[in-house]
Amino acid sequence: MARSDAGKDEAGRFAYQGLDRVIHERARLGILASLAAHREGLFFTDLKAACDLTDGNLSRHLTVLSDAKLVTARKGAGGSRPQTQYRLTADGRRRFAAYIDLLDRIVADANPEPSVEGGRSRPGLSQA
Amino acid sequence: MARSDAGKDEAGRFAYQGLDRVIHERARLGILASLAAHREGLFFTDLKAACDLTDGNLSRHLTVLSDAKLVTARKGAGGSRPQTQYRLTADGRRRFAAYIDLLDRIVADANPEPSVEGGRSRPGLSQA
Repeated sequence: MARSDAGKDEAGRFAYQGLDRVIHERARLGILASLAAHREGLFFTDLKAACDLTDGNLSRHLTVLSDAKLVTARKGAGGSRPQTQYRLTADGRRRFAAYIDLLDRIVADANPEPSVEGGRSRPGLSQA
Repeated sequence: MARSDAGKDEAGRFAYQGLDRVIHERARLGILASLAAHREGLFFTDLKAACDLTDGNLSRHLTVLSDAKLVTARKGAGGSRPQTQYRLTADGRRRFAAYIDLLDRIVADANPEPSVEGGRSRPGLSQA
């Protein structure tokens, strides 16, 4: 049953080198997904709630994302208490889209046969 | 334009708590995806090629996966040079499927409107 040559024909097939570590980290993935879903940008408190992060963790991850040029911050104008608003940069939007495409491929890898319309059959993963 | 209440109605929406860190790590994700695609199991050398890992890295990650009861190893029978074969445990298969379901949700989050049949429109991510 064991195929001694299994994998030989697919060298690097599952290396997933494109999974950018800056984006792949769980909290940062949540932050980027939030910002992708809110093109107008989000305030710190909104991000904190959406991602369920502490002030410290959110600050730390936003710094990493800003340093990587994925996210940009700007002081909100107007209002008596201006807040900083965060949004994806154009490059961040592009890189996040590429990352999502790779996730899509990983999901497809786990679903080798096309699923039934609207269904969720996972022939590769279903097992008694 | 800024919605000060954005995110308020979706607390924790992007927390992605279910993203098991043992599975989410890039190299381990590749190993698990390889094993999910090869139900009969894979030998060390096959895994190494499929995931493009060094002996040391692959060993280290296999230990983490074994300790987490996601992967099981057994000495291959027969042949003059028996090799160790790795495969997903039943629990590993189940947990990997749950992880993949969450990735699927993340991909859907990034594609707020249903894409055209066979197409790849990403209204949430496309931007000039």
